Amino acid sequence: MIKVAVLGYGTVGSGVVQVIQDNAALISKRVGDDIEVKYILDLREFPGDKNEDKVVHDINVILDDPEVSIVCETMGGVNPAFQFSKDALAKGKSVCTSNKELVENHGPELIALAKQNNCNYLFEASVGGGIPIIRPMNSSLAPEEIVRIMGILNGTTNFILTKMAKEGAAYADVLKQAQELGYAERNPEADVEGHDAGRKIAILSSLMTGKTVKFADVHTEGITKIETIDFEYAAKMGKSIKLIAMAEQKDGKLTALVAPFMIGADHPLNGVNGVFNAIYVTGNMLGDVMFYGQGAGKLATASAVVSDVIECARNLDRTLPVVWDDEKLDVEDYTASERCFFVRAAIGSRSQVLNTFGSINEIRVTDEEFAFVTNKMSEQAFNKLIASVDKVISTIRVAE
Amino acid sequence: MIKVAVLGYGTVGSGVVQVIQDNAALISKRVGDDIEVKYILDLREFPGDKNEDKVVHDINVILDDPEVSIVCETMGGVNPAFQFSKDALAKGKSVCTSNKELVENHGPELIALAKQNNCNYLFEASVGGGIPIIRPMNSSLAPEEIVRIMGILNGTTNFILTKMAKEGAAYADVLKQAQELGYAERNPEADVEGHDAGRKIAILSSLMTGKTVKFADVHTEGITKIETIDFEYAAKMGKSIKLIAMAEQKDGKLTALVAPFMIGADHPLNGVNGVFNAIYVTGNMLGDVMFYGQGAGKLATASAVVSDVIECARNLDRTLPVVWDDEKLDVEDYTASERCFFVRAAIGSRSQVLNTFGSINEIRVTDEEFAFVTNKMSEQAFNKLIASVDKVISTIRVAE
Repeated sequence: MIKVAVLGYGTVGSGVVQVIQDNAALISKRVGDDIEVKYILDLREFPGDKNEDKVVHDINVILDDPEVSIVCETMGGVNPAFQFSKDALAKGKSVCTSNKELVENHGPELIALAKQNNCNYLFEASVGGGIPIIRPMNSSLAPEEIVRIMGILNGTTNFILTKMAKEGAAYADVLKQAQELGYAERNPEADVEGHDAGRKIAILSSLMTGKTVKFADVHTEGITKIETIDFEYAAKMGKSIKLIAMAEQKDGKLTALVAPFMIGADHPLNGVNGVFNAIYVTGNMLGDVMFYGQGAGKLATASAVVSDVIECARNLDRTLPVVWDDEKLDVEDYTASERCFFVRAAIGSRSQVLNTFGSINEIRVTDEEFAFVTNKMSEQAFNKLIASVDKVISTIRVAE
Repeated sequence: MIKVAVLGYGTVGSGVVQVIQDNAALISKRVGDDIEVKYILDLREFPGDKNEDKVVHDINVILDDPEVSIVCETMGGVNPAFQFSKDALAKGKSVCTSNKELVENHGPELIALAKQNNCNYLFEASVGGGIPIIRPMNSSLAPEEIVRIMGILNGTTNFILTKMAKEGAAYADVLKQAQELGYAERNPEADVEGHDAGRKIAILSSLMTGKTVKFADVHTEGITKIETIDFEYAAKMGKSIKLIAMAEQKDGKLTALVAPFMIGADHPLNGVNGVFNAIYVTGNMLGDVMFYGQGAGKLATASAVVSDVIECARNLDRTLPVVWDDEKLDVEDYTASERCFFVRAAIGSRSQVLNTFGSINEIRVTDEEFAFVTNKMSEQAFNKLIASVDKVISTIRVAE
């Protein structure tokens, strides 16, 4: 019998308890031992809940119980989750987390601490919710030099962009709907400004390079400037607009950014809609692979945490390899990356555009403005060219 | 230093050697030890090849060398691969294979033999080429009761169907092109009749249930009866036509079949085109996830074999858990499954159809015939109804 404690009985934590209990028989068969939730740490009481007798309010009850070998940290936030995780690992208890903020801020330290104490710090649920991506990065893709990761890593923004595309609705209206449905927070900044996706691509970039990529070094642009008319242009070109978290590695140099991109009709990320997420990975041998699924949601995220619990249960007293050193990687300036750009400009700028960009394939959906897609060039080169056009309305990057 | 032998220096085997050698530095970092190819077993000589000095013709050189701890079996076929694999495992050497025929026929025996000898029999490359699916099934999806797997598991047929759809070309012509391009064998039966996909879904069904599902119990229908006009109907409905390998589990009963299906526009499998493959898995907690990538090809398949080599190298003298017993599963009659059906019938049968199926949404692309999609019903019920219509031209299953 392997005993587990769950820290935080919120959405994900209660999902973890449900997955472990509802699928107990098959999990037992696959682990070769029963797994049981012994404690649930929460400040609240849960009268009437079938697990109310497992609820404790003092972390030391869990830390001091030698029977508990695995701790699920589903609290979120850095404090007190960081201290609780360190204390558990120091006692040789493996920790499985869905906490991307903590992993992004202190991942290498917690991984090293787990190694020192012969246990594991696993974080499958911290990126992509229920989508298997952290474990595949560490094992299935271990033979590969990963040259690029493109991810739709935030469900809220993908829900908003999908609804804008399908219904021709305005950003502000769709955001309001998303807030009413509970898909967006009252303060939506972390999602809509790309910070959530930025933390996740920082984690994936760290696993990609084996060094530490900080969120602060990821350039982030959100979706707040995307307009309804942008989707009209996109539809005309058979493209969709997605918030893409991208990390590219070339000649040992990494660039990382989060920004809206136009995605062509033939690209597998084009059709990833609503609250679904996907991570498109290019390896130097393997070519392209994609992992698709629910990027959030109670049971999907909980399933990812429980997959880590099973991995820990199969590897008690043994640390699984994760190559993520605390050496900070110097991230390159993202403006060195080359790509095409979609540009909207006022009709009055037409001759300036032609003078600057040469011949263009003009796209029109209204009389007041026109749009075109540039040839492939560095962001630096593009920024210089576009500065010489007076009435640029907006620009969106185009993915290959 | 971990020494590896590669059995068979064909497409996949030479790819395995290339991946291990070209990505040696990063593999070494991720394993914590160097991995080196010591022997290549092949009947042929390879004068001028940079690895010609590693070529041996006698399996016993490899079996008798205690330095070799991992063997890559990339020969294909049951004999002599089966004997070689047994002999290697009996000596405590882990075996990594791309050989679906051997895995489907003797998987549980080889897995058990590996366990007895404290080593591993791994087969990531046997299904889906470079797509990570076997390891995710065994680890990431371990908390899940898998309720359904839908796979595009054969690159040749997907190439043919995609080309028929995009170019309006006839089956025979596209097959000929595929043969000329080397995408289809001169005797294409194993691919186009669904046998290759059938073996692969048998393997996935075994991992899904933990018991042995035999290929012989998988109902297979190929793509040879799909006509150009079927794609006209499909396009009119926004659907695509794919050869789907499907396994469904309900109330402990499993059905499995391979057959062409019409796939709706919003389904993630809809846009999986050309030689790409994808596996769409539904778990009882996780919901839907999809794994996408190159289902064949030298380096993609080789990368999957090398991911197994890395796993073995990280787990020398330790057997990784694979739940696949040799107990044979009684597969249910696939005709009990419920779904919708696309039906084409001659115009003369119109009143019979209306009498039998009630009101229908008629689809017309020509004057001589009409088509419609039935309500959801069991295959048995459908077969009874359709038998009462005289001039049915063809039927295709429709996926949800």
